Amino acid sequence: MDFRSDNTHGCSPEIVEALVRANRGTMTSYGDDAVTARLRDRCCELFACDVDVFPVLTGTAANALSIASMTTPASRIVCHSEAHIHLEELGAAEFLSGGAKLVPIDGVDGKLNDKDVASVASFDCLSITQATEAGTLYRPDDLAALGGLAHARGAGVHMDGARFANAVAALGCAPADLTRRVGVDVLSFGATKNGAMGAEMIVVFRKDLAARLGALWHRSGHRLSKSRFLSAQLEAYLTDDLWLRNARHANAAAARLAHGIRGHVEILRPVEVNVLFVRMEDSLAAALRAQGFSFYDWELFGAGSKRLVTAFDSTDAEIDSFIAAIQQSSCP
Amino acid sequence: MDFRSDNTHGCSPEIVEALVRANRGTMTSYGDDAVTARLRDRCCELFACDVDVFPVLTGTAANALSIASMTTPASRIVCHSEAHIHLEELGAAEFLSGGAKLVPIDGVDGKLNDKDVASVASFDCLSITQATEAGTLYRPDDLAALGGLAHARGAGVHMDGARFANAVAALGCAPADLTRRVGVDVLSFGATKNGAMGAEMIVVFRKDLAARLGALWHRSGHRLSKSRFLSAQLEAYLTDDLWLRNARHANAAAARLAHGIRGHVEILRPVEVNVLFVRMEDSLAAALRAQGFSFYDWELFGAGSKRLVTAFDSTDAEIDSFIAAIQQSSCP
Amino acid sequence: MDFRSDNTHGCSPEIVEALVRANRGTMTSYGDDAVTARLRDRCCELFACDVDVFPVLTGTAANALSIASMTTPASRIVCHSEAHIHLEELGAAEFLSGGAKLVPIDGVDGKLNDKDVASVASFDCLSITQATEAGTLYRPDDLAALGGLAHARGAGVHMDGARFANAVAALGCAPADLTRRVGVDVLSFGATKNGAMGAEMIVVFRKDLAARLGALWHRSGHRLSKSRFLSAQLEAYLTDDLWLRNARHANAAAARLAHGIRGHVEILRPVEVNVLFVRMEDSLAAALRAQGFSFYDWELFGAGSKRLVTAFDSTDAEIDSFIAAIQQSSCP
Amino acid sequence: MDFRSDNTHGCSPEIVEALVRANRGTMTSYGDDAVTARLRDRCCELFACDVDVFPVLTGTAANALSIASMTTPASRIVCHSEAHIHLEELGAAEFLSGGAKLVPIDGVDGKLNDKDVASVASFDCLSITQATEAGTLYRPDDLAALGGLAHARGAGVHMDGARFANAVAALGCAPADLTRRVGVDVLSFGATKNGAMGAEMIVVFRKDLAARLGALWHRSGHRLSKSRFLSAQLEAYLTDDLWLRNARHANAAAARLAHGIRGHVEILRPVEVNVLFVRMEDSLAAALRAQGFSFYDWELFGAGSKRLVTAFDSTDAEIDSFIAAIQQSSCP
Repeated sequence: MDFRSDNTHGCSPEIVEALVRANRGTMTSYGDDAVTARLRDRCCELFACDVDVFPVLTGTAANALSIASMTTPASRIVCHSEAHIHLEELGAAEFLSGGAKLVPIDGVDGKLNDKDVASVASFDCLSITQATEAGTLYRPDDLAALGGLAHARGAGVHMDGARFANAVAALGCAPADLTRRVGVDVLSFGATKNGAMGAEMIVVFRKDLAARLGALWHRSGHRLSKSRFLSAQLEAYLTDDLWLRNARHANAAAARLAHGIRGHVEILRPVEVNVLFVRMEDSLAAALRAQGFSFYDWELFGAGSKRLVTAFDSTDAEIDSFIAAIQQSSCP
Repeated sequence: MDFRSDNTHGCSPEIVEALVRANRGTMTSYGDDAVTARLRDRCCELFACDVDVFPVLTGTAANALSIASMTTPASRIVCHSEAHIHLEELGAAEFLSGGAKLVPIDGVDGKLNDKDVASVASFDCLSITQATEAGTLYRPDDLAALGGLAHARGAGVHMDGARFANAVAALGCAPADLTRRVGVDVLSFGATKNGAMGAEMIVVFRKDLAARLGALWHRSGHRLSKSRFLSAQLEAYLTDDLWLRNARHANAAAARLAHGIRGHVEILRPVEVNVLFVRMEDSLAAALRAQGFSFYDWELFGAGSKRLVTAFDSTDAEIDSFIAAIQQSSCP
Repeated sequence: MDFRSDNTHGCSPEIVEALVRANRGTMTSYGDDAVTARLRDRCCELFACDVDVFPVLTGTAANALSIASMTTPASRIVCHSEAHIHLEELGAAEFLSGGAKLVPIDGVDGKLNDKDVASVASFDCLSITQATEAGTLYRPDDLAALGGLAHARGAGVHMDGARFANAVAALGCAPADLTRRVGVDVLSFGATKNGAMGAEMIVVFRKDLAARLGALWHRSGHRLSKSRFLSAQLEAYLTDDLWLRNARHANAAAARLAHGIRGHVEILRPVEVNVLFVRMEDSLAAALRAQGFSFYDWELFGAGSKRLVTAFDSTDAEIDSFIAAIQQSSCP
Repeated sequence: MDFRSDNTHGCSPEIVEALVRANRGTMTSYGDDAVTARLRDRCCELFACDVDVFPVLTGTAANALSIASMTTPASRIVCHSEAHIHLEELGAAEFLSGGAKLVPIDGVDGKLNDKDVASVASFDCLSITQATEAGTLYRPDDLAALGGLAHARGAGVHMDGARFANAVAALGCAPADLTRRVGVDVLSFGATKNGAMGAEMIVVFRKDLAARLGALWHRSGHRLSKSRFLSAQLEAYLTDDLWLRNARHANAAAARLAHGIRGHVEILRPVEVNVLFVRMEDSLAAALRAQGFSFYDWELFGAGSKRLVTAFDSTDAEIDSFIAAIQQSSCP
C-alpha cells in the first residue's frame, strides 16, 4: 500500500488505449500531426480562449521552460521557499533560463502572500504552485491579488500546476478562473501525477511568450519527433473529464484518510487535495512500514513529519487498512 | 506511402506490449525501479562492460546532454558540417552546455576525416554521427583514428547514434567495436527512429561523465518520474534483437529501393543504411507526390535533391510501387 | 615600428590626466558618481537623444552584453562571417546570451548585404560591424536598409563599433546618422583601440533594453565598483573631440601608407579607415620583419595576406620608413 | 568623512604612477606583455609555487569566473548565507557557470562551520570568504578543516579574497598558509577595495583549472586587450608591500574606531579587519549623517544595524572626529 507519491503509481487504462489508437499509420512529426491539433483545440475550449500548447515529458521541463519563456539570464524569479522549482528540480529553472536567480520567500501553509511578494525589490517572474507543495489551495481572489501585483511590476506569472487537476476538482472553478482570468501567463498543466504515463502540457496565454517557448522547447530537447504519442496521452486525459475524475478520486481518498486518522496523529497542514502531512513517532512509522505501508519522511515540516499521497487508483480498502493500523497503534 | 522520415512511422507492437506490462502496481520513481535496473544490466551485457544508462525522450536531448557532460561553457565542439546537432537541433548542444561553441567542418559523404579534425587548433569534444546524416557508415578503423586523435588532444568523444542500430546491423560488428573499443565515451543510442514511441538511451562508458550526466539529466527536465515507461520501451527494444531486426528490415528496404531505381534517377550518396538521396526533376517529384508518395526536399545536397527514408515497417509492396512509379516516369 | 594592432599601442595623455583628476576624494560607487553622470549627459548630447550608457572594460564585453540584451537562449543572431563576434571572441555572445546561436553569412568586403540577410529564415538580432573587420565602411543608406529589414522581422540591431570613431571620422556623419537614425538599437562604442587604456561604452537607444543591460552588466562582472575610473577615460575621450582627432590621425596614417605602397604590393580591400590588407611574398615579409616592422599574418584573406594597422600615435616617420622599405624591396 | 565602503575611495599614488610608467611604447596585447609576465613571477614568489594569474576588472568577475572554472551547469556551490556571491553579485556565479545552483548555509560571525558543510548532501564547489562579509577571519586550522572536507567530497575550493590583504595583514601568515596549503584551489585576490583603480587577480593553484579559466576569461569579456594596464596596477600593488601597508592602515583605523566607540554603541561582530558593524538609534544615525559622516544601513544584521568601513587612506582625524561625535551624542 503505497502512499509515497502520485509518481509511484501507473497510468489510467484510457491513456494506454489512446496510445494504442494513436499507433496507426504514418503522421507528420514534430507536432504537426492531427492528434496534437485536436489537443490544442480541446485546450482552447477548456480555457475559453486561444492558447498555445507544448506537450513535454516531465513537470520539471514544463516548469523550467515556462519560466525560461518569460525570463532572461538577468532575471529574478520569486517563488515560495517550499516550491518544487526551488527544492526538487536541481536548479532547472536557473539552468534553462541561462542563469536567472530564484528569490524564495516564506508563507504560511505553502502559500505566497501578496504583501510578502510586494516587499521584494524587483523581479521578472512570479511562480505560483496550485495546488501547493503543502497540499493547500489558493482561492481565485488570492491568485488575482498575486497576479495583479506581478503585472503591475512588469513581471510574468507562471503557475506550477503539477496538481492543477486536483485544484480544479476541489475548488469547482472553471480552469480559466484559476489561470488567465487571474493573471497567469503560462501554466504547467500536469498529467503524469494524475494518471498519465509521462506527459505534461505547457499552456500559454500570451502569443509573445509562445514564440519563445517554441524555440526553447526544441532547443532543450523536449520536442518529441513522434509527437502523437505525447499528445494522445493528453487528449485522452482531457476526454470525458478523465483528468477531473482521477483528481476527484484522489482528493476523496485523502479526505477519507484524514477523517479516519484525525485525533490519532497530528495533521500538519489543511488537507485540501490529495496530499497529507502528519507527525508521528518513529516507532509508529516503523510499525506501519513493517505492515507494508510506504510513505516518505518530510523533515522540511519538522522532526517526525511524514507525507502521505493518495492517487487516482487508491482504493478504499487501502485507505481503510491504513486508518485501522493507525487507530490500533494509538490505542492505549 | 511515406518516405519522409523514420519519425513519421509509429512503433513496434512489442514496444506497446511492454508498456502495457509495465503498467502494473506501484514502483519507485525517478529511475529506481526494477525495469530500469534490468535495462542497465542488458546494456552492460550488450557492450560487454559496466556502463551507465540514462533514458530520455528525444535524440536532441540525448545528443545535447551527452555533449554537455563532457564540456563547459568555455568548450569547443568539433562536428561534421552536416551534423544533426549543427543543422537540426536549434543550438541544443550550445544551450545545454551553457554556451559552448560548435566548430563544424566539412568531409566527403557526411564523414569526418581525421586529417581535417587534426587541423582544428583546439577542441574539447568530438561528435561523430554513426550512421551519418548522409546515410553512410564509418568503419571501425575510421572511428579508431578519430577517437585516438580526440583523446590525444584531451577531448571527449560523443557518438550520435540516432541510427546506431542501422549501423550495427549493416556492419555486423559487436556494439562495443563501434563505441568504447574505438574511443567513444558517450553514445546517444537511438530507438525512436527505429520502432520506439519516444525513447533514447544515453550510454556512458566513463564513470566521471556519468556523475555529471546524472545531474544534467534531472536539471534539464529529462528525468521522467514514472521512469518505468521509458525503460520498458528500451528493454523491449533490446529484447530478442528487436532493435537489430527492425534495423535490418529498414536497411534491406533501402537497398531494394536503391537497386530498383538506380539508372533511372541519380543516387547522390552511397546507400549503406536506410536513408537514400536522389536527384530528380521537379516534374518527376510532383508526379510522384501526386501518386501519394511523400518525401522531403534536401537542398543541402544540391538543387533537385530529395531524401528517401525507409522504416522498420516499410513493406515490399510500398517499395516496389515507388520503384515502378520511377521506372514508368523515366521511360521515353 | 608596430603595425600589429591598435591594441598594442598605449593611451593618449589626455586619458591619463583624466584618471589623475578623477582620483580625488570619495565618490559613490557602482555608477552613481558625478563623472559617470557627466559622461551620460555628453552621450545624450552627442547622439541628440536620451540614451543609457554602460561603461565596460573590453570590446568583447560590449558586444556580448549588447547582444545578450536583445536575445534569449533561444535566439538566432545574424552576423558577417568575418565578424569579430564570430571569429575572435571565443563564443562570448553565445555564452552571455545563455546559448543563442550565431548565423554567420558571407558578403563582399566584410559587409552584409540586405538581400543576403533577407534570405535568413528567422533571426532575433542583427549585428553589424562599423567600420568592418575588412577596414571598410557602410554608408548610411546601407545601414538603413539593414536596420529596416531587421526591424521588419522583429529583430534588434547591434552595431559593433570597436572602430566607430574611425567610421565617423571618415564619413563625416553625425553619430546619430550612423546609429539610431538608421535603426541601431545598441552600439558598442569603442575607445580602447583609439587611445583609451581599457574602456568601451555600451550606448543604448531603447529603454526596454537598458533595463536588461543593467542587470546583465552587473551579473557578468562588468560593473566596476570604482566606476569613476572607467567613466573618466570615456569622458576625456569625448572631450574636445579627442576621439575624432585620434581617429582622423590613424585614418590619415593608413591612407598615407596605402598611397605609398600601392603598385608595389597588392592591396586586398578598399582602405577606408586605419586597417590595410596586403598580399606579399614570404621573403618580403621576412625582410620587413628583420628590419623591425611588425604585423600579423591574415590567412583568412588568402595565402600571403598580411594586416597592417595604424594607430592614434603612428608617426609619419614610421609610415614613411615602412613605405621606403617596401619600395626598396620591390625594386628590380 | 566617508565610511560607506572601501569602494568609495580613490586609489594609491603608487598605482597611478605605475600606469603612467606602463604607458610607454607598444606591447603585445591580450596578456603576452612584459608587465603581465612580471606580475605572474611575483605571484609565484609570493605563494611559493607555480601559479597562473588572470587579471580582471572586478571582484564579481573574479569570483564568478573562479567558481565557473570548477563547476558545470549541473553543479552545486556551497557558500555562507551572507556571502557576497549570494547577496550582492546578482547571480553572477550562476550566470557564468551556465546555471549552477548556490546552496547558502548559515554560520556564526559570517563563518562556515565544517560540521554544517559536512551535512550538505552533495556539492561540487565550496566558496569561502576571507576576510568574511562580517569583518571576521578564519584561522588556518578552520580553513584546513573546510578544505579537507571539500576535497574529500571531490569538490573544489574557492576563496573570495576581496579583502585578502586585510586578512593576511591581520593574521600575519604567509599567503600560502591561508590558501594552497589549506586546500584553496582558486583565489580571488582583491586589489580594488585596497587602493587599486579597478583590478583583481584570479590566482590559480591547479593547472587543470587554469586551462578552463583561460577560455572563460576571454569568453566572458574579461581579458583586456591592452593587458599591461591591469597588470601594472597589480604589479605596483605587490611591490614594496603596498598591499600589506594599505591593509594594515585600514585595519588599524578600524581598531582605533572600535576602541573609541565601544561602550557607547553596541558592536555587533568581532572587529578583525577594516569592517565594523554597530547598532544605533535612528536619531543618532541621523545626527551623525547631518554632521557629514556617511555609512550604510545593514538591516541584514538586525534593525538599526550600520556598517562602517575604513580604507587605506582613512585618517586618524576622520576616525577621531567620528568617535567624538559618538561619545558626545551618547552622553547623558
